[in-house]
Amino acid sequence: MRIALLGFGSVGQGIARALREKDLGISITGIADSRSGLIAPGGIDIDAALAQKRELGYCGDPSVRPMDVALLAEYDALVEVTPTDVITGEPALTHIRAALGRGRHVVTSNKGPIALAYDDLIAEAESRHVSLRYEATVCGAIPIIHALQEGLAGNRVKRLSGVLNGTCNYILTRMSDEGLTYEQALMEARELGYAEADPTYDVKGIDAAIKLVILANTILHMDKALDDVQITGIDLLTPDALRLAEEQEMTIRLIGEIIPDEDILRVSPRIIGKAHPLVVEGTLNAVTVDTDMAGEITFIGKGAGSVETASAIIGDLLFIRDRYVTGT
Amino acid sequence: MRIALLGFGSVGQGIARALREKDLGISITGIADSRSGLIAPGGIDIDAALAQKRELGYCGDPSVRPMDVALLAEYDALVEVTPTDVITGEPALTHIRAALGRGRHVVTSNKGPIALAYDDLIAEAESRHVSLRYEATVCGAIPIIHALQEGLAGNRVKRLSGVLNGTCNYILTRMSDEGLTYEQALMEARELGYAEADPTYDVKGIDAAIKLVILANTILHMDKALDDVQITGIDLLTPDALRLAEEQEMTIRLIGEIIPDEDILRVSPRIIGKAHPLVVEGTLNAVTVDTDMAGEITFIGKGAGSVETASAIIGDLLFIRDRYVTGT
Repeated sequence: MRIALLGFGSVGQGIARALREKDLGISITGIADSRSGLIAPGGIDIDAALAQKRELGYCGDPSVRPMDVALLAEYDALVEVTPTDVITGEPALTHIRAALGRGRHVVTSNKGPIALAYDDLIAEAESRHVSLRYEATVCGAIPIIHALQEGLAGNRVKRLSGVLNGTCNYILTRMSDEGLTYEQALMEARELGYAEADPTYDVKGIDAAIKLVILANTILHMDKALDDVQITGIDLLTPDALRLAEEQEMTIRLIGEIIPDEDILRVSPRIIGKAHPLVVEGTLNAVTVDTDMAGEITFIGKGAGSVETASAIIGDLLFIRDRYVTGT
Repeated sequence: MRIALLGFGSVGQGIARALREKDLGISITGIADSRSGLIAPGGIDIDAALAQKRELGYCGDPSVRPMDVALLAEYDALVEVTPTDVITGEPALTHIRAALGRGRHVVTSNKGPIALAYDDLIAEAESRHVSLRYEATVCGAIPIIHALQEGLAGNRVKRLSGVLNGTCNYILTRMSDEGLTYEQALMEARELGYAEADPTYDVKGIDAAIKLVILANTILHMDKALDDVQITGIDLLTPDALRLAEEQEMTIRLIGEIIPDEDILRVSPRIIGKAHPLVVEGTLNAVTVDTDMAGEITFIGKGAGSVETASAIIGDLLFIRDRYVTGT
């Protein structure tokens, strides 16, 4: 199977390294970063691309654009991991449309296109008998989309709730364990690289809300936009609130929740018992799905990180390889 | 898609009810229990079979044997959920071979055939281009096999550890929480239906060990038998041992563990911190997989129960339906 890889930052490089190290029958015939691209029908020299990226800051030929790779390279699946605006979905959305338009499979870690345009994109994919996979958009390395679409297929989901944002969870863990203020914990998270310079998107609950929209629209047959989610962030929480919870053997976590029958999507800080499976530490994510047959199933794992995202992308690629490309 | 259903106890009836209630495009063209069978190419009347089972104690025609259904009914997949000896694998093993011999897919909840004869059975299935699925053999409703084969595909498993037996976990939870002796907790588990009249198989760690053998042979490319597992049960644990653990904010759980690189499979009571994700309560199961890319992923859910087992069986059937029967 041949892939084109758009985006050659830490995630893209992680994918390239994993494919070089593992014998998965997947070769890369095109790559691009924001400044350059490379098309090689016989397969990209991954070591050379990594070395050039390290030395020059870009991986390919500056005259080749990402869209050139999407439109001209020979590949079975496009892997779209470019830095993308989560609200407009660009530039990933345009790249994904280009690949689907050519009848190619698509795997992406970009939340924007999936949250904004899943219905359109999946209709296009289905009409061309190709697959659109997005495991990496929700909860990093936890194979929650696979589990809901495959292992738990046949179950009706009565409720889905989870810790979907590692930055918030880190801040709340530190406020709870060490009695830090929100500002102190946020500063620490920034220093450790767990929070961005502008943390609004995480701490206001928007990132968690977008993940809920993706799960609602792609798995739970709902039709939701970001505006439909009731959102409260963690930025106004005081150490007093956490101390009060602690006194009752409870703690506070930012919980994203979908209740399909009540048409509810919400993100808010919640007081929960310390023994609850969703009370995970640090930057971990956790999701509990309450179903009609399987009961409650909880998944815990790393919600972010370049290698973890690469794991989810490769899981999707192998799904496509086994189901479409090589047959079974 | 048409299935034949061998075994019409609580699991078999749970599957039949779920297929009747859900519109999954799966019909039942043959059923059997140990005393009778029924073949109906146009589809079994599930309500009538359930009613007859309730009234007469058997579901079909006493002159029709399970093997008649396996050999003569028209079906795409055989669902094998008969009461089966876990050591000999019979009668399930014979039924499964009959279905594979006819080039039919097989889904089973029976551990015996998978632990004993997976290599043979999968070779036969592959030579006939059909699927052999066994999600229900390990951890009930938790889709751990799906997750390892699909979502986490591409990862190398460095270590797998888990609470794989709900009976033992219930007993340990009660000894720990209430200070009960092993005998008291076992008696309570029996009264609640969580332990069998002869609990040897569970409390000696054999059930957990067989699940390790299944995971080792089918997912981790090892070649193990029950004798290869180092096993210590929970039947000699004293309340003192648990009290001592409690005093250090720890507790004791029966942990099954596979370390592929060290060629180790073992089941033993282990002292672990109370905040550890594997410390689950009551009859729950939990598994943590430590991988090279995804890091540690933990799965928690109900490890037994007829509806939970039906969930796993139906997940496997839908996998086969989507991949082989209807195409994608």
